[in-house]
Amino acid sequence: MKLVLDAMGGDHAPHEIVAGAVDYARKTGHTVILVGQEDAVNAELAQHDASRLNLFVVHAPETIDMDEQPALAARRKKNNSMAVGMRLVRDGQADAFCTMGHTGGALTAGHMVFRRIPGVHRAVLTTPFPSPKGFFIFGDVGANTDCKPEWLAQWGQMMAIYAQARLGVSQPRVALLSNGEEEGKGTQLTRATESLMREALGAAYMGVVEPKEMIAGEANVVVTDGFTGNVAIKLTEAVATYLLQIIREEITARKLAMVGAALARPAFRAAAARLDDREYGAGLLLGLNGLVTVGHGRSKRDRVYFALRNTAQLVEANILEQVRAEVVRTVKR
Amino acid sequence: MKLVLDAMGGDHAPHEIVAGAVDYARKTGHTVILVGQEDAVNAELAQHDASRLNLFVVHAPETIDMDEQPALAARRKKNNSMAVGMRLVRDGQADAFCTMGHTGGALTAGHMVFRRIPGVHRAVLTTPFPSPKGFFIFGDVGANTDCKPEWLAQWGQMMAIYAQARLGVSQPRVALLSNGEEEGKGTQLTRATESLMREALGAAYMGVVEPKEMIAGEANVVVTDGFTGNVAIKLTEAVATYLLQIIREEITARKLAMVGAALARPAFRAAAARLDDREYGAGLLLGLNGLVTVGHGRSKRDRVYFALRNTAQLVEANILEQVRAEVVRTVKR
Repeated sequence: MKLVLDAMGGDHAPHEIVAGAVDYARKTGHTVILVGQEDAVNAELAQHDASRLNLFVVHAPETIDMDEQPALAARRKKNNSMAVGMRLVRDGQADAFCTMGHTGGALTAGHMVFRRIPGVHRAVLTTPFPSPKGFFIFGDVGANTDCKPEWLAQWGQMMAIYAQARLGVSQPRVALLSNGEEEGKGTQLTRATESLMREALGAAYMGVVEPKEMIAGEANVVVTDGFTGNVAIKLTEAVATYLLQIIREEITARKLAMVGAALARPAFRAAAARLDDREYGAGLLLGLNGLVTVGHGRSKRDRVYFALRNTAQLVEANILEQVRAEVVRTVKR
Repeated sequence: MKLVLDAMGGDHAPHEIVAGAVDYARKTGHTVILVGQEDAVNAELAQHDASRLNLFVVHAPETIDMDEQPALAARRKKNNSMAVGMRLVRDGQADAFCTMGHTGGALTAGHMVFRRIPGVHRAVLTTPFPSPKGFFIFGDVGANTDCKPEWLAQWGQMMAIYAQARLGVSQPRVALLSNGEEEGKGTQLTRATESLMREALGAAYMGVVEPKEMIAGEANVVVTDGFTGNVAIKLTEAVATYLLQIIREEITARKLAMVGAALARPAFRAAAARLDDREYGAGLLLGLNGLVTVGHGRSKRDRVYFALRNTAQLVEANILEQVRAEVVRTVKR
């Protein structure tokens, strides 16, 4: 197993990225190729006892900075760390590429380096999403804002394969996000997508779900356009943060409540653990001729470790070949 | 002040609806005309000491039932309680109409009875939304799923007037909901709306907001299409419910945590009070030639009371005339 990791991507790069790579290489024995500013990466590596691990550094002279338009920067800087890393995968020197950097940059570089799988309309950015019934696969969460029905239907097919490989669900239930089933609900897009999804997925297509059913985990895969999906994941995070902030403020304003909260702390911790997407949190770009995962920009070493572990699982599940076969099967039909 | 209340609308109609009307009439001395099945409404009224209150019953032979497609039913049943009630307002016998019933039914009946204000592209369903900085006005939350840029721009204007009247903000900050400002973010709709809103609203338009900024209350008015808006309010409710459910489950699984939670209860109550939209929760249909407010379907008497009170405030603020003047001003320009 050889994974390429973007050493320059994310809020805590390269420090935490390199630390996560060291942890991963030590625990698994796998090879991790760190791509980035050679000096900076080597300086980080020197802080670890990493001499006997399968860690390699490949120099990338350019980086996509936080204050740049990532898509523009990815196009202008041909030798940014993402592009250099993806080329290693494309040329057969590694199995997959993983970054904690800008999603927009990864999207642009991914398209430039890997191209789409022939027959794929558009690549889709997917992410695991927590629910009371376990995680489900949600997408598009931001790759494509204005979408066509056939794109969403095909994403449903590809995401079903991802759900099988990642969640171990043999018959994933695939749904389309909408605001209801009644007359006047849904958009032209969702209504046109409905029949295409039924055709493409057969019994695996369970129909539309409202946000309530989605959050309850009634589907293993929830498909939507990248505008709605991106708004939905950002809104979910904002609402959860706001709610917990208000509870925290009201507790800290009361001495007795603080005592109570201290007693209840194990319960809060357990609740947080159930919502924690740390072990699941890397997104997957589906539809490209190469495996690209995108972890959270705020990732520290533990999340970097899990992002690499998830990436390796997808390589082992041979998800790319499975998606290619599904696309060929459908396009031929 | 004369308000018409749909006695048949909502999960707890007519029992809680009539009770809320009695409370309201008693506290304010205002007139409330209850529209619905005469026998059922009178039977409810008989349970209250309401003989000296300004409560009147107007018979409506038909109702829109919960298991019907509300828009279809509103069209088929010409004498449903909403249509009968709205006609009283249209014909000058009352100032505004209020229902806890189906939004879809209110929309259809509202269009049929009142028509749109000349120059208004589409009526918009708006609702107050809680934030750390107080409530803001959010819409469209479900009246129009496929939208045009000029609709959203006009909604921004009308909603700004609503924010002035309802929230007492003299210079409301109006924003457009999007998933970011960078290249590749937003849709054709949001990008086309941007320039129109800047033109229509001038300095009052603050640009796009992401969900995080919206939830933080950075705008007084947030405009979006009715699909995204409907998904957003449903998702917000679902995420909040799920989060509190998980916390509750983990607390009740631990004896000591239950003791702690009991001590912290005043803090939880205070947090809940800050999020409570009970006093604000009635939505307003903007753009029709008549004032229509739509309360929550689950409303009990207290929410019915507040919905009536909010409706009266809007009548007093003369919001309908203000909106008409704004539309005339803009259309002439």
